[in-house]
Amino acid sequence: MNLPRKQLTQPRHRLFDAREWPIDELRLLASERSAGKVQCFRGRDLVVQEAKADSFQGIDVAFFSAGSSRSKEFAPHAMKAGAVVIDNSSAYRMDTDVPLVVPEINFDTIKPGDKFVANPNCTAIILLMALAPLRSLGRMERVVVSTYQSASGAGAKAMDELVTQTDAILKGEQVVPKEFPHQSAFNVFSHNTPIDETGYNEEERKVIAESRKILGMPALRINVTCVRVPVLRAHSESVTVEFAGKAPSVEDVRAALAKAPGVKVIDDRESNTFPMPAVASGTDDVYVGRIRQDLSNPGALCMFIAGDQLLKGAALNAVQIGERMFGVRTSPEHSAATR
Amino acid sequence: MNLPRKQLTQPRHRLFDAREWPIDELRLLASERSAGKVQCFRGRDLVVQEAKADSFQGIDVAFFSAGSSRSKEFAPHAMKAGAVVIDNSSAYRMDTDVPLVVPEINFDTIKPGDKFVANPNCTAIILLMALAPLRSLGRMERVVVSTYQSASGAGAKAMDELVTQTDAILKGEQVVPKEFPHQSAFNVFSHNTPIDETGYNEEERKVIAESRKILGMPALRINVTCVRVPVLRAHSESVTVEFAGKAPSVEDVRAALAKAPGVKVIDDRESNTFPMPAVASGTDDVYVGRIRQDLSNPGALCMFIAGDQLLKGAALNAVQIGERMFGVRTSPEHSAATR
Repeated sequence: MNLPRKQLTQPRHRLFDAREWPIDELRLLASERSAGKVQCFRGRDLVVQEAKADSFQGIDVAFFSAGSSRSKEFAPHAMKAGAVVIDNSSAYRMDTDVPLVVPEINFDTIKPGDKFVANPNCTAIILLMALAPLRSLGRMERVVVSTYQSASGAGAKAMDELVTQTDAILKGEQVVPKEFPHQSAFNVFSHNTPIDETGYNEEERKVIAESRKILGMPALRINVTCVRVPVLRAHSESVTVEFAGKAPSVEDVRAALAKAPGVKVIDDRESNTFPMPAVASGTDDVYVGRIRQDLSNPGALCMFIAGDQLLKGAALNAVQIGERMFGVRTSPEHSAATR
Repeated sequence: MNLPRKQLTQPRHRLFDAREWPIDELRLLASERSAGKVQCFRGRDLVVQEAKADSFQGIDVAFFSAGSSRSKEFAPHAMKAGAVVIDNSSAYRMDTDVPLVVPEINFDTIKPGDKFVANPNCTAIILLMALAPLRSLGRMERVVVSTYQSASGAGAKAMDELVTQTDAILKGEQVVPKEFPHQSAFNVFSHNTPIDETGYNEEERKVIAESRKILGMPALRINVTCVRVPVLRAHSESVTVEFAGKAPSVEDVRAALAKAPGVKVIDDRESNTFPMPAVASGTDDVYVGRIRQDLSNPGALCMFIAGDQLLKGAALNAVQIGERMFGVRTSPEHSAATR
């Protein structure tokens, strides 16, 4: 097994190549700081340009992934220039007129003429890939989630910190956390986003609000505890789903998930093999297992989920939105190609 | 911060010394394989002896921690010789006539003349230290738990494997799991105990059955998902507690936990500081935080717990049982001394 960290050094446009997007021009925009850097795409060197108001002329689709303030600043310019914006920031996710889309679940919320689509929170996407197929089996009333989130969810520097800090601890050296508020190596800590007066952190509030919107279930009761674990890449989630009345059978849940696009069931009780971040890292699918009746509630069932939050939880989902909007035909080999 | 792994190399009798047990004779018994090894206790070298049927003459209290089969083989001999047995194995925990004890919670289930006391499962002890104080605030009906369990719960070899495997992965080397069924470094996996037809593994079934017995609440509904994380020492648990009627207030819960012996509240929302295994490692207390109303259920509240499963989850709890049974006065310094 290779160090998953290496995967982070892939250029962000790798998915376009792997999925054989028909691209006439790829324009790489960034802050002034990154302008001038060179990246290779399909054998040609592309120079990163500084993003400006007039950077979007002639662009069909603009992927934004530079945080809320950049999205707020530049998305209007991109749309004015005629581009469709697919935005990975949380800036407009909860706006009522903005579609917040996981293509397998609610692509139909994008209406003809829509110029802006929001890409959801990574933890929400991974959760919903496993929840959405269960809607056909019963009425979900409440979902209880505890997460096992990887360092890369906080960016490349946080991932590097986990690596260097782990190395330092193995050598018996003192460590001083910098990217995270707490020691990340050989430790577990509550998600590093601000907590409001309800006691919930921002990540948890995103998962709750975005899940309701994407599922079209504004009254769904959701309880989330977001936790960081010393994993480099891929998030895992322990989930209990409560239904109105009796929970669907384990067999029916397995069958519904097995036929859901983008979902893989790994549920071998005999060999104790279930979803793990080490398996999910670098792959497109969301893995679901440990599917079982909740012994404490006949109306509930439990499952354990793992998915690469950088792929399906972020870049892949955004690219899939673009593919569906523009009718891009993708290669069936995309998964292996992104590893 | 030192590598917590070093703490595992402490001799098992360290707690007796740190807690100033008045010991005339400490007899170290083990299998034939370990017989002849020498350990130092209070300045004297003690030779480990092979445990035999007649090894227990003159012993007041015998601590068993060598697995169920050894307990079944030798506990009867120890009791026949007049010793009180405090057994860390799961051999007799669920026997109706065997007290299963967390001293802070149910020491009163030990009756005069009892010669055998079972020490509970580590995950259960840590959970119950946080649950028991809430009984005064309302009637608990259901508990939903997801765990973040450290490698040392599976023994010293598993802990060593996490260290060497982490080092290998940092060097880009291939790793082949041996102690655990799956890669433990930078990974998360379902607890490595056998799963029965209900879909629950042995660890989860222990937590459910033992928690009910210790709390004296045979009808308490409990849902547990036990998961291993790449932490060397100390278990963490994400817990949702559902009450009959309205949940107690966060303030009342904090107050009840703050005055519970052996419990420390770490619950600073402002600085995002909550219980972590890195803090719990090597300490006696069970830490509780992230105490908040469950947004999905007005009758429920959530919390996050961390505790050293080798101390309060195992050895310390056993030693505390002995202290209460024999009226041993302990040093207030015990916690620091075991770090």
